[in-house]
Amino acid sequence: MNEKLPDIKTDFALWYQEIVHKAELADHAPVRGCMVIRPYGYAIWELIKERLDKRIKETGHQNASFPLLIPESFLKREAQHVEGFAPELAVVTHAGGKELEEPLVVRPTSETIIHYMYAQWLKSWRDLPILINQWANVVRWEMRTRPFLRTTEFLWQEGHTAHETEQEAQEEALLLLKEYIDLCQNYLAVPVIAGVKSEKEKFPGADKTYTFEGVMPDGKALQMGTSHLISQSFAKAFNMAFQDRTGNLAYPYLTSWGATTRLVGAVIMVHGDKKGLILPPRIAPIQLVIVPILKKGEEASVLAAAQRIKDSLTNVRVQVDADDQKTPGAKFYHWEMKGVPLRLEIGPRDLAANQAIVTDRLTGTKKTISLDKLATEIPALLEAFQTQLFERAQANQKSHWHKAAKLAEFGPIMAEHNGIYQTGWCQRKECEEVLREYKATTRCLLDEKTFEYCFNCDRLSICDVIVGKAY
Amino acid sequence: MNEKLPDIKTDFALWYQEIVHKAELADHAPVRGCMVIRPYGYAIWELIKERLDKRIKETGHQNASFPLLIPESFLKREAQHVEGFAPELAVVTHAGGKELEEPLVVRPTSETIIHYMYAQWLKSWRDLPILINQWANVVRWEMRTRPFLRTTEFLWQEGHTAHETEQEAQEEALLLLKEYIDLCQNYLAVPVIAGVKSEKEKFPGADKTYTFEGVMPDGKALQMGTSHLISQSFAKAFNMAFQDRTGNLAYPYLTSWGATTRLVGAVIMVHGDKKGLILPPRIAPIQLVIVPILKKGEEASVLAAAQRIKDSLTNVRVQVDADDQKTPGAKFYHWEMKGVPLRLEIGPRDLAANQAIVTDRLTGTKKTISLDKLATEIPALLEAFQTQLFERAQANQKSHWHKAAKLAEFGPIMAEHNGIYQTGWCQRKECEEVLREYKATTRCLLDEKTFEYCFNCDRLSICDVIVGKAY
Repeated sequence: MNEKLPDIKTDFALWYQEIVHKAELADHAPVRGCMVIRPYGYAIWELIKERLDKRIKETGHQNASFPLLIPESFLKREAQHVEGFAPELAVVTHAGGKELEEPLVVRPTSETIIHYMYAQWLKSWRDLPILINQWANVVRWEMRTRPFLRTTEFLWQEGHTAHETEQEAQEEALLLLKEYIDLCQNYLAVPVIAGVKSEKEKFPGADKTYTFEGVMPDGKALQMGTSHLISQSFAKAFNMAFQDRTGNLAYPYLTSWGATTRLVGAVIMVHGDKKGLILPPRIAPIQLVIVPILKKGEEASVLAAAQRIKDSLTNVRVQVDADDQKTPGAKFYHWEMKGVPLRLEIGPRDLAANQAIVTDRLTGTKKTISLDKLATEIPALLEAFQTQLFERAQANQKSHWHKAAKLAEFGPIMAEHNGIYQTGWCQRKECEEVLREYKATTRCLLDEKTFEYCFNCDRLSICDVIVGKAY
Repeated sequence: MNEKLPDIKTDFALWYQEIVHKAELADHAPVRGCMVIRPYGYAIWELIKERLDKRIKETGHQNASFPLLIPESFLKREAQHVEGFAPELAVVTHAGGKELEEPLVVRPTSETIIHYMYAQWLKSWRDLPILINQWANVVRWEMRTRPFLRTTEFLWQEGHTAHETEQEAQEEALLLLKEYIDLCQNYLAVPVIAGVKSEKEKFPGADKTYTFEGVMPDGKALQMGTSHLISQSFAKAFNMAFQDRTGNLAYPYLTSWGATTRLVGAVIMVHGDKKGLILPPRIAPIQLVIVPILKKGEEASVLAAAQRIKDSLTNVRVQVDADDQKTPGAKFYHWEMKGVPLRLEIGPRDLAANQAIVTDRLTGTKKTISLDKLATEIPALLEAFQTQLFERAQANQKSHWHKAAKLAEFGPIMAEHNGIYQTGWCQRKECEEVLREYKATTRCLLDEKTFEYCFNCDRLSICDVIVGKAY
């Protein structure tokens, strides 16, 4: 079991694949591009979900559930939408032993069916805003898949809202963007760059897509989620008319926003090291593992002490590893692989001295702590761990985030060594297309302007843009 | 908006359909037999889920996620299983713009794909037990559908476990049965009859199916969930061999158990009355609604008092209905329809007297309570409400639960007036088949014996059985 992981520096993709497997986060399913999320991986997702769900509700939204299967004709009602999703659809053609009159697609996203329902519910401006979210599974037939990062089926939440005014919709889209950034930075400990997608990169059918992008240790960008201002053409395609305050017919302004199981992939990549995972305490299913050091004849008292420590740490997620078939060394290896932030060792001598040794997964620092002080010291160590992890991730982000004026200069370096580049852009598609030669895309437009000219042509830049290779 | 509901006594089915719509629990979806669970209905499901999930974890299980789409060949590996589910399958034949080499079925239940994965994970007896649950959506192409009670897609949890010994599997199946009964009786306030399904009625591929059945106000039975001992033929079909304690190859003993959004349907039917829903406080999204009685010039102080009351009831789910477009009467009607257990009215005169009037949705009893005592009285009233509701449901169950010796006598009465009948049975299929003539089935075998002979033939009865019409 103690084979080493592939080298994280030279073989990052293989390291990722191996750690997902070895830490028992997920397995390949016997269906192309699908994964099985194993209990340890799912517990991370549940903690992410719990936090995000709480904030979605606190900001005034309610959960609901819409059907998995969508009539094919619904997707065709919005031209850009069907063009964007058609190549990725999984289609149910037979059911109940018969061929269906109209095929049903397995939802790739739920705008169409949700807008159809909103049209039934929405009569007057008094019915607005509609603020609904759903936690669901969606299917997109992807070509190249990787556990968590891109899978044929994935889990996500998708919020769909309808508003009386464009400004309100705009505020809603930005509100959720802010929540997502808070989730990433303060819970996943992953710093993100937030901005707006280019016309080419935005969601099929959106007027505007806000994105938040993480920078991975290999210098590639990862789109971690999006928040859209949906085009009013959706509202029209689904006859979502309502009577406005002046008694006239009007169409609502719509948003949608989503975050997926991909977030787990970001956590794995951003924080992991050569020993395996490192989990941010706030989303770690186990925050502290207790390894009792068992000496013959003194097992019972040490195990009892381990249990007492666990019971006393009521606000910490603690596991006691009491397995008598494994050496402490094998246990250390196992829990390091699984990224548990803190390890506490206690043996007969420690117990006699009323103390324990606590080791930090991030730095390996050992600290001897009096048993009486664990209830205050452990939560403090976890908080410090969370902060340190975020700072380390920020340093990584910074090390890969370059500024450069001309693609002709930075393009070849980016193509070979990755990294993301902040530069100027005229916002014409022709210049965006050139990035392809370097396997890069625009990731997001920033709300700042430090370059005068476009990275490609001699036109003036409108605002800064982040370009880079992406997952 | 104040049209009356259909008569609950004479037109129960129509009453059900209307209340689901009017209380905004669910809507028909534009896909045959599917429903949209609206926020109020979904909030009930979330509270049921929260309680059940907590108990599933406390009894040692972990959540995970398995794929939605299952290769068609997997279902065919277990003969009884495919026979049971084949007529109900929805099949994906095309994906990513191409016809698939092997069709994929949308999971009707996940035994096959989960057992396939367990076979990869299970090497030695040390890996047992495997105790996994998933919260998921499943699709079964049903002929006659009704919101919550029987829908093409429904939400559920499905637990799947593997054990070293048959006895352990048996204990597991019974442990979950016990948890389900606790959930139904102590949270949904729905009394159930628990027992074993007949060979004909059991889950396709199970050795034994435990069931818990509710008795609806119209005298029909509702299967509320099941817990199965899965046949070892599954373990063999999926090559789930492991090395046992003696070093030999062995196959695990399996269970599966599930409960669905149908539970919401049971709550609607069992507790509702002519005014609408009545929700058990433990799963009511709103336990207390505050209706401020607004008099001109005194709105602000009354609204402030309502908010203060809400804020002081920290462990109660409270909503203040501050809508200034509606009369108190319209609000009373609305919240009665939605089944909120308690209503609190407060107007300027009450406020001056430091009191409020609390009305009980079940009996309509009004009580004047001092504002200083609300924090103790409201939780006590909610507890009493929960108990009363359960007792009323028990009385309903009792009124429909008859004992009778011979089908020839009770059959015609059952066919006309419903009701469930406890009787004797020889346990032969021939006699079970005769129930069809009365549109009835065996619902469950009981662990008692009060009849000497079979309800149909002259053979001896093996144990009592419940027969009746079912949803």
